Amino acid sequence: MRKPGPSIQDTGEDVATQTRRRIIDAATEVFLQDGYVGAKTDEIAAAAGASKQTIYKHFGRKENLFEQIVLDRLGGIDEIFRAAIGELAVTDDVEATLTAVARKFVSTIMRPSHLRVRRLVIAEAGRFPHLGLAYFEAGPERVHAALASAFAQLAERGLLRVDDPVLAANHFTWLVVSIPVNKVMFCGDDTRFTQAELDHFADSAVHVFTAAYRAPSRSSA
Amino acid sequence: MRKPGPSIQDTGEDVATQTRRRIIDAATEVFLQDGYVGAKTDEIAAAAGASKQTIYKHFGRKENLFEQIVLDRLGGIDEIFRAAIGELAVTDDVEATLTAVARKFVSTIMRPSHLRVRRLVIAEAGRFPHLGLAYFEAGPERVHAALASAFAQLAERGLLRVDDPVLAANHFTWLVVSIPVNKVMFCGDDTRFTQAELDHFADSAVHVFTAAYRAPSRSSA
Repeated sequence: MRKPGPSIQDTGEDVATQTRRRIIDAATEVFLQDGYVGAKTDEIAAAAGASKQTIYKHFGRKENLFEQIVLDRLGGIDEIFRAAIGELAVTDDVEATLTAVARKFVSTIMRPSHLRVRRLVIAEAGRFPHLGLAYFEAGPERVHAALASAFAQLAERGLLRVDDPVLAANHFTWLVVSIPVNKVMFCGDDTRFTQAELDHFADSAVHVFTAAYRAPSRSSA
Repeated sequence: MRKPGPSIQDTGEDVATQTRRRIIDAATEVFLQDGYVGAKTDEIAAAAGASKQTIYKHFGRKENLFEQIVLDRLGGIDEIFRAAIGELAVTDDVEATLTAVARKFVSTIMRPSHLRVRRLVIAEAGRFPHLGLAYFEAGPERVHAALASAFAQLAERGLLRVDDPVLAANHFTWLVVSIPVNKVMFCGDDTRFTQAELDHFADSAVHVFTAAYRAPSRSSA
């Protein structure tokens, strides 16, 4: 007879969660070191202190493990933008709220762990477009959809003038992150920016964006 | 006694040029197929129909060959921007000239051969930052420096208002190319855009850029 007492059940769940976390962390390092094709499940198992069977049980094929890593790394970005939509929807000071969003966004994107996964996804997307597509849908597309929704609301409230909210969302995010992200992509993971530099990229991006998309002020209409 | 007649000299140069071109084309394919680390000089030699010695004679180490490929692919972009500066310096219609530049720029950047090399450079820049740096200096930085010079001239002529020309150049280029370039980087080399879509990215980027950077019109001053 099984005896699934609550404390054992809880401990079992914790162990499973911890095992998943250990496998994801180990696999991330192995993927980054050896690339997607070069990464061996044996090596991931050894680094995670788990058996290959445990990895298969939790994640199935290597492809699924890779996608879990990608989604794991993008989790935080999604949350920032859920909060940002709420703030943008009620703000009366679009430029100030966009500046706060832009500063938080560029700081999040520029985390070394995020940028290393971004590089890995781009490296493999030529051979394995479905891996890149999973990243693109969970990251940039979700962020752009959320921002587009916020911009459309601001346009309805007469605070922005936006014909194509998804295009405007793309202009906003790439204005904010392209300079530092591309510098790291090309010049390597040791490229560093100060917080003041990142804030300046965010602030100047908001300045350009609002110049193009702010609604004409009523006083001059 | 050597007899370096002009016709022999000419033929000799042509053969050398053709050999270099054959090696660069073959090496590009092998690098794209196997990655920088996986690419073997034997394989490049076989694909080029040349000996390993010939490759060493023309390019030295694999690293130098890779840099030559990168510089080779970026050559056209540089030329477009040399011409663009000349046009921008004398134009009286900034928006029209910027639109022509933006349309030509995005079409050039979106060539499949360019994007495949871009992906390869990003893939390897984590492990070999000097490779990425060579690309960054010969590509984005040179383009931004040239554009910044043109924007500074337009500001002097009272047609733009630009405090930081290099920042403005970065805003311009990433506004123009980020949407289609990032889509291909993540979603794979089979991602296609129509000419009308690329033109629309260019035109809308110029609209955003000029809203932020055009000088206040004299009539309203």
